[in-house]
Amino acid sequence: MHHPIPGSHKHRTRIRVRYAETDQMGVVYYSNYFVWMEIGRVELVRERGFNYKELEQTEGLFLSVIDATCHYLYPARYDEEIVVQTEVVNASSRTIEFAYQIRSAGSDRLLAQGSTRHIWLNREWRPVRLPDQYREVLRIG
Amino acid sequence: MHHPIPGSHKHRTRIRVRYAETDQMGVVYYSNYFVWMEIGRVELVRERGFNYKELEQTEGLFLSVIDATCHYLYPARYDEEIVVQTEVVNASSRTIEFAYQIRSAGSDRLLAQGSTRHIWLNREWRPVRLPDQYREVLRIG
Amino acid sequence: MHHPIPGSHKHRTRIRVRYAETDQMGVVYYSNYFVWMEIGRVELVRERGFNYKELEQTEGLFLSVIDATCHYLYPARYDEEIVVQTEVVNASSRTIEFAYQIRSAGSDRLLAQGSTRHIWLNREWRPVRLPDQYREVLRIG
Amino acid sequence: MHHPIPGSHKHRTRIRVRYAETDQMGVVYYSNYFVWMEIGRVELVRERGFNYKELEQTEGLFLSVIDATCHYLYPARYDEEIVVQTEVVNASSRTIEFAYQIRSAGSDRLLAQGSTRHIWLNREWRPVRLPDQYREVLRIG
Repeated sequence: MHHPIPGSHKHRTRIRVRYAETDQMGVVYYSNYFVWMEIGRVELVRERGFNYKELEQTEGLFLSVIDATCHYLYPARYDEEIVVQTEVVNASSRTIEFAYQIRSAGSDRLLAQGSTRHIWLNREWRPVRLPDQYREVLRIG
Repeated sequence: MHHPIPGSHKHRTRIRVRYAETDQMGVVYYSNYFVWMEIGRVELVRERGFNYKELEQTEGLFLSVIDATCHYLYPARYDEEIVVQTEVVNASSRTIEFAYQIRSAGSDRLLAQGSTRHIWLNREWRPVRLPDQYREVLRIG
Repeated sequence: MHHPIPGSHKHRTRIRVRYAETDQMGVVYYSNYFVWMEIGRVELVRERGFNYKELEQTEGLFLSVIDATCHYLYPARYDEEIVVQTEVVNASSRTIEFAYQIRSAGSDRLLAQGSTRHIWLNREWRPVRLPDQYREVLRIG
Repeated sequence: MHHPIPGSHKHRTRIRVRYAETDQMGVVYYSNYFVWMEIGRVELVRERGFNYKELEQTEGLFLSVIDATCHYLYPARYDEEIVVQTEVVNASSRTIEFAYQIRSAGSDRLLAQGSTRHIWLNREWRPVRLPDQYREVLRIG
């Protein structure tokens, strides 16, 4: 395609907030945003044609997190539909970094944004290079 | 000992309720009581002289749950100290059943009671008999 | 309708197993099935034309669990799509009981079945009768 | 005191890793470190003579997170005792920032370090100034 649509490589996945994810402040407990980020990156990988589960089982490759951040703007609430927008913002043979925007599906209001940085490990927990066929699909953008 | 102390074989462990364990009703979310039961049975095992982690790693024995129940009487609240009282109520070479009472540490009020039933599995997920040395320590009472 | 379709009043909702829901046994941790049951009953309520969130906010009615059980047959695994089938098996003005079957979406294999029993509470945590308009939609079957 | 002991204002609290906190990689799932940080800051507050629960109930003051970060060095494992070391690194009338080190209690190895930044909210979710008596105890160091 000659004219790439800006933002077209951002994966979007929808999640409905569970009661279990709220706390007594009446909003989503802060650590759960990182669970949603995990769903975002897994779905991005799936959209690009393979799945993370097989990567673990068949290739013995594990995506180990080394950094995680989240900036919270507005609280997500019970039963709200939220959209996790995920993109690859950095990728080498050994590391990959995702950025996330978490929005209210109804209002499109940005609720939080975050990032995670990962290294690839093998079954012996040693850092490894991601095979070329996967690097191609997990490229930036 | 000639005069066993009633209840002496019930293991007690203390837990402080975490903010993460509450929900927007302002009390502990119901599935978390099962997490506390897990802590109760692990600590009972530890008190009896071995530990569940080693059972998994060294013996390749896994305690797989087949039934779980909980009856809720009063809500546990954030920051409250609770006591999980655990006992073995049934044990064979292949299955084990625990009963639990979850109490407020301050008032001793019974908040919930439950039970879990388990089978022993090996690394291939096949039901197995628990070796005699462990059966002895995991007996009823 | 003269010939009700058996099982037609069972609500079905799909959930994909999250990485966060697994434990080091490589399968879903047992307390998470109760989180899925909560999703099942909330979606059943939604399908019947109102939503639980509004019930809490507008009517000040809370569905408080008094009993929960789960029988586990086969483990649910990471990334698997599961179906939670929920039905009302008992309902009075003051209590309601749901039954659940949790199946693998691919094979339709029954993984677990459970139940929860609840009472209705008001904002002061006193048991109350469910207003008639809600009783009608939350009837059995 | 004329000669402050370096590090003397760092609060330490011990936590044993729960089975529920692990995932199928065999280590603690990454979002749970943020739950431990919450325990660390609550215990720091308690050590300084009041408690967060009362702050919420009596004063209507809520500590709302606006930023959270974690850098992961070594995985925490099931049944391991870990130490969460918490300190106030920044505090004004309206915001407070905590830094955390999460260590293995046995080896003292640093497993992860993180930070959280918060604002104070009232019951109407409006940013407020922390009353002076609390500011004094929640000072830096």
